[in-house]
Amino acid sequence: MILRKGNTLLLERGAALVSSAAVVGRKEGEGPLADSFDRIVRDPYAGQKSWEKAESELQKQAVTLALQKANLPANEIDVMLSGDLINQCTPSCYAAAPLGIPMLGLFGACSTAAESLALGSLMVESGAAEHALCLTSSHFCTAERQFRTPLAYGGQRSPTAQWTVTGAGAFVLAKEGALKIKGVCIGRPVDMGVRDVSNMGAAMAPAACDTLTRFFRDTGKAPCDFDLILTGDLGSIGHRIVGEQMSSQGLPLGERYEDCGLLVYDVKRQDMHAGGSGCGCSAVVLAGHVISKMKQGLYSNVLLAGTGALMSPMSLQQGDAIVGIAHLIWLSTC
Amino acid sequence: MILRKGNTLLLERGAALVSSAAVVGRKEGEGPLADSFDRIVRDPYAGQKSWEKAESELQKQAVTLALQKANLPANEIDVMLSGDLINQCTPSCYAAAPLGIPMLGLFGACSTAAESLALGSLMVESGAAEHALCLTSSHFCTAERQFRTPLAYGGQRSPTAQWTVTGAGAFVLAKEGALKIKGVCIGRPVDMGVRDVSNMGAAMAPAACDTLTRFFRDTGKAPCDFDLILTGDLGSIGHRIVGEQMSSQGLPLGERYEDCGLLVYDVKRQDMHAGGSGCGCSAVVLAGHVISKMKQGLYSNVLLAGTGALMSPMSLQQGDAIVGIAHLIWLSTC
Repeated sequence: MILRKGNTLLLERGAALVSSAAVVGRKEGEGPLADSFDRIVRDPYAGQKSWEKAESELQKQAVTLALQKANLPANEIDVMLSGDLINQCTPSCYAAAPLGIPMLGLFGACSTAAESLALGSLMVESGAAEHALCLTSSHFCTAERQFRTPLAYGGQRSPTAQWTVTGAGAFVLAKEGALKIKGVCIGRPVDMGVRDVSNMGAAMAPAACDTLTRFFRDTGKAPCDFDLILTGDLGSIGHRIVGEQMSSQGLPLGERYEDCGLLVYDVKRQDMHAGGSGCGCSAVVLAGHVISKMKQGLYSNVLLAGTGALMSPMSLQQGDAIVGIAHLIWLSTC
Repeated sequence: MILRKGNTLLLERGAALVSSAAVVGRKEGEGPLADSFDRIVRDPYAGQKSWEKAESELQKQAVTLALQKANLPANEIDVMLSGDLINQCTPSCYAAAPLGIPMLGLFGACSTAAESLALGSLMVESGAAEHALCLTSSHFCTAERQFRTPLAYGGQRSPTAQWTVTGAGAFVLAKEGALKIKGVCIGRPVDMGVRDVSNMGAAMAPAACDTLTRFFRDTGKAPCDFDLILTGDLGSIGHRIVGEQMSSQGLPLGERYEDCGLLVYDVKRQDMHAGGSGCGCSAVVLAGHVISKMKQGLYSNVLLAGTGALMSPMSLQQGDAIVGIAHLIWLSTC
C-alpha cells in the first residue's frame, strides 16, 4: 500500500533491499571506502576496447554479483531499472541486452541510482514486480570525454570541479527483508541559473534542499529522526550550501549530514578538488558503505537525496543553465 | 490492484487517459492525420533560437493544452514522466523546469511515449499518483543533427530510412475516465545484430514481436480481441517484418495491424521513404488520431507497442549493434 502525503510516498509494507553490489575503478579502490566495495577493477578499460564498453562491463559485473548474493537467477527478476550519463544511456542498454529482463531506461543524470530505487520500490510495493533490479554506473573517462575535454589535453581542473566516479552499483529489491525502502520523494527540476559546468555542486544543491524540505514537511519528521542524511554527489561546495540553506530554513541537518562525493575519496590526499560525482558515486557508496553499516546496526534510518544535473554540453553552449534535481529514498531497518 | 501474469501487468481498475494533446511540425501538419492534431507549428524553430529549444517549446505547448483539456492546474499533477532522443534528454528537462512538478526522466528512445504511459498508469493504479503527466517529443532537425549528418549537407537518404517526426505528445492520467490503460508489458532489449542506422525498422521489429508474443501468451488473448494493434515507428520495412514474423508464430495480426510511422505521413505523396519515426511519432499519433477514434467509439480495444532503438552514433562507431525494445500498453473503453 502506497500512502501519498503531499509529494512524499510512504510504503506501508516497504520494499526490501535484499542485495547490492559495488564494482569500482582504481581511484575509488584507493579511497577510504575501499573495503566496502565488492570488486576493484584497476584497468580503466576493464578488459574492453573502449571506455564506454568498460562502463557497460562494470554494470554487468555488478549485476552478476548482486544476483549471486540474492541467490536469484536473472529470469526471476521481473523488471530492471537502469541508466547512466552517457548519450542515449548506451552503457546501460548494452549491459541489459544479454540479460533478457524487461527493462525501463531512466535518465536522471547523477540522481539515477535514487530514481531507480524510488521507482523500483514503488513497483515492488504495488505488486507490479516481485523482484526488481536497479542498476547505475559512471566512468571518469567516458564522462570527461563527453562533458568536458579530451583526456589527452590534460586540462587544468578548477578547485570547484568534481571527479566522476568510475563504478557501477546494482541493487535487488524484493518483498521480504530486513532493510527496507519506506519512503520516496520524487525530485522537482530546479533552475537557479547556475551555468558553471565546473561547479555542479552549486547547481544541484538547491534541488537537494527542495526535496529534503518537502520530505520533512510532508512526513512531519525532523533531521534528528535519521542517523544519516546523505546527498548524492554535491561535493564540498554543494554540501556547504545545503548545510547552510537547511539551517536557515529551521531544519539544521547537523553532523549526520554527509555527501557521497565527499565519502568516496580522501579528497585532500587523493587531490580530488571538490570531491566525487557521477551516477556511480551515490550508487557505489550506498551499495557498499551505507548498506554494510546498516546491516551492522550502526544506522537504522537513512535518507539519500540522489542529486543530478540536467544539462548537456550543447544546452550550455546554447545558453541554458544547469537544472538540478534530487530524488529521495528513506531506508530503514526498523 | 496490479495483477502480474507472466511478464504482463494487468490493471484491475485501470488508469484513465483523461486528456491528451499533440503539437506537430509542418510536414506532420501536411499529412493525413492533420485534423487530429491540436496545433501545427510551421516554423521549425517554433520562435526559439535553436532546434533543441524548439523541441522543448513543442513539449511546453503540448503540456499547456493537455492540462487545459483536463481542467487541471500544474500543481495538481503529482508526477510527470518524460523523455526524448536528445543527449541527456535536455528538451524534456528544460520543458519540465518551469512547471515545478516532481519529474521522473526516462530514456527509452522512440519507445518513450509507451514507457511513460506504462509507468504512469502503474503509478495511478497503485495510488502513487492521483494525476500523472506523460510527455514525449522529437524533432527532425535535432535528431538529424545528432544521429546522422548536418542538415546543410543535404545527404541522400536510403530507401529504408525513416523521417523523424517533429512533434510532442502530452497525456494526463487519472483514476476516473472512460478510456483506460488496462494492461502493460515492459519491453526486453533485443539485439539481433542489425547495424544499419538507416534501417531502424528492421532493428526494432524483433523487439516488437517479442513483446506482442509475451502479451498474448500471458493474457491468453488473441490479435482478434483488439480493434487496432499498433507498433510505434517501424515504418514499412519493420511493419512487414512484424506482420510476417507474428504470422509465422501462429499469431497473424491481420488488417488491424498498423504502424504509427506509416499513419503519420502519406508516405508516397510526401516522399517519406520508409515512414516516420522518433519519440514524437507514436506520441502524436496516439494523442491525436487513436484517442479521437476511441472516443468516437470506432475502436474499443487498442494495443500500442512503442518501439525504440537503443544506440548512439558512438556505440555504432565502436562496433555495437542496434538494440531494439518495445513497451506495450493496452487501451480500452470497455
